[in-house]
Amino acid sequence: VHVTGSTKADNYNRIPSPGEIALTPGAAYVHCTTNNTIEGTEWSSLPAAGDAPLVADASSDIFSRPIDVRRFGLIYAGAQKNLGPSGVTLVIVHNDLLARSSKSLPTMLNYKVMAENNSLYNTPNTFGIYILGLTMKWVKSIGGLAAVAETNDRKAGKLYAELDRTGFYRGTAEKASRSRMNVTFRLASEDLEKKFEKEATAAGLDGLKGHRSVGGMRASIYNAFPEAGVDALVQFMREFERTNG
Amino acid sequence: VHVTGSTKADNYNRIPSPGEIALTPGAAYVHCTTNNTIEGTEWSSLPAAGDAPLVADASSDIFSRPIDVRRFGLIYAGAQKNLGPSGVTLVIVHNDLLARSSKSLPTMLNYKVMAENNSLYNTPNTFGIYILGLTMKWVKSIGGLAAVAETNDRKAGKLYAELDRTGFYRGTAEKASRSRMNVTFRLASEDLEKKFEKEATAAGLDGLKGHRSVGGMRASIYNAFPEAGVDALVQFMREFERTNG
Repeated sequence: VHVTGSTKADNYNRIPSPGEIALTPGAAYVHCTTNNTIEGTEWSSLPAAGDAPLVADASSDIFSRPIDVRRFGLIYAGAQKNLGPSGVTLVIVHNDLLARSSKSLPTMLNYKVMAENNSLYNTPNTFGIYILGLTMKWVKSIGGLAAVAETNDRKAGKLYAELDRTGFYRGTAEKASRSRMNVTFRLASEDLEKKFEKEATAAGLDGLKGHRSVGGMRASIYNAFPEAGVDALVQFMREFERTNG
Repeated sequence: VHVTGSTKADNYNRIPSPGEIALTPGAAYVHCTTNNTIEGTEWSSLPAAGDAPLVADASSDIFSRPIDVRRFGLIYAGAQKNLGPSGVTLVIVHNDLLARSSKSLPTMLNYKVMAENNSLYNTPNTFGIYILGLTMKWVKSIGGLAAVAETNDRKAGKLYAELDRTGFYRGTAEKASRSRMNVTFRLASEDLEKKFEKEATAAGLDGLKGHRSVGGMRASIYNAFPEAGVDALVQFMREFERTNG
């Protein structure tokens, strides 16, 4: 593995800029994770991959907006964020890459075998796939990915506007790298964060604790999270600031 | 792969006898499938494995009766027969074999990694595991595997007694090799089998068509299939014989 770009020095609080990415000539592929659930960052436009196919873990922002699949050699995404229940992985792979599948791969991890058998080589997670199908129908019924993207932009926009309003809350990701799926922020102290989380939970706003590896707060607002929930959180944040600011 | 024993010459209508099994000295393991869903055969007692660990695909009769796990090096079983919904695999593996896990295995197929992480290295099929847990509670609530085995013996016994009653139906597996999970049988002609299947389906007795690779009829009576369903099938078989015999 050659690391082409990293913002480790900045605690991953932003996506590398194009100038910071040094591609490896002759690389088999270039990998990126389109959204970072822990740090709350997201690629707003895809990184250049040169001549190599771009391979992306899109688990946490797949189907949050339209994407140009032609830009990718391979996309893989665990279902459990925007697609359906856990235990299913969506894979979109270019035929050129399928042809390069190694014969030494175990069958269950060989996408070529899966493709040749219409993704039914084995008995798969039928319930998960069924629910994923229902989710796809729901996405279509509400206007497709363009409509989903609009809603997601609006949902994230409301939360980031609240973060930026006074300085009581502090968004941890740089503005240009902000995720539309995971809105990460801090308060003035860890004690205040604990109080915030406790009172939010009591108010029915659960799951706001940041990932254990970074602390702070995190609002995960995947497709299934309703805009009314974002509105309720913004209300709560204002009231919390009023009484603790 | 060294085939230690096969009944291919008899169309797999029986389990190899101990005298027909020639173990390979120094084999890494000996593999068997405890129940054959297609042919309707089942090992009534485990094959000898010599010094090698016995590895078993127990997908289609796991938890149909008590088993002595100490006899096995590794048991693997897809959930979709007796355990729960598809998309989960139960693995029981001896620590000695875990220690031999190859480092070149992809992580997702490395049981050592799974064991070290309490089967939670990745986000698994949570719904499937939850349902599997409910199934395990149900098994306990009805008296555990000893009670399950009694019911299964009785269910299969009723169907095999009907097959053996007059000769109108013909069980395809040799008696000593008969499966308690998949009862396979033929009628006098394929036309009669088609009629049987059609009328059975109309009577609410669905799924009786044999596997496409062998034809004939197959009654799959896994743990979840109620004894009342077996009774209804026996009733139907008698009536069908009366009007077509």
